[in-house]
Amino acid sequence: MSHDAAALESFVKRYLDTVAGGSAAEVAALYADDATLEDPVGSGEVHIGRQAIEGFYKNLTAAGAEITTELLKFRPGGHEAAFLFAIVVGGAMRIEPIEIMTFDAEGKITSMKAYWTAADITQL
Amino acid sequence: MSHDAAALESFVKRYLDTVAGGSAAEVAALYADDATLEDPVGSGEVHIGRQAIEGFYKNLTAAGAEITTELLKFRPGGHEAAFLFAIVVGGAMRIEPIEIMTFDAEGKITSMKAYWTAADITQL
Repeated sequence: MSHDAAALESFVKRYLDTVAGGSAAEVAALYADDATLEDPVGSGEVHIGRQAIEGFYKNLTAAGAEITTELLKFRPGGHEAAFLFAIVVGGAMRIEPIEIMTFDAEGKITSMKAYWTAADITQL
Repeated sequence: MSHDAAALESFVKRYLDTVAGGSAAEVAALYADDATLEDPVGSGEVHIGRQAIEGFYKNLTAAGAEITTELLKFRPGGHEAAFLFAIVVGGAMRIEPIEIMTFDAEGKITSMKAYWTAADITQL
């Protein structure tokens, strides 16, 4: 189930591009059926399954604000990746989370954990 | 078992300071008895228990080279932390891993996963 570094980076870039330019359904389609999502870690809420995950991304895009993303640091390992990225919402708010993702043999995301707090938000 | 952001950051800084200035036994003492360590993620080797973990840090410090560390990005969440840091070994080699740590109620490290590859090493 291991992937090489280039493949893992392509999965992460596809994810960030889809978050920026795609619908909630398109982002959710990158996840495995039984995937889990915790964002932010420590919130006490884990979204389980693609339907719940699509609901999470619907909330993110509900306001209709333009979203841009940028990969800042990328660290692959086995079937996992850790990365620091920037997400800018509506040109007004920039957040820099660290995320951990695991992938199945087909490159679908099996788990995502996002580490960030209000202290990591910059008003632009 | 949740810790506030300042406490989590103090645990991580204590760890990085001890890696830089302490013995393998002192670093291992920051871990819980039954902690796990995977460094790098994808190596297929997970060190389980404080004794195995001390062995891992002994290998790191065996050459007697001076080690310095610097916390670059820190993201807390619940009883976990994600961080990007730099480690310089013998003034000759700089690595910038992303690590994920979990902590117990006393602030002992219960798991550590380090994400980096040869591509993240800079010869100085």
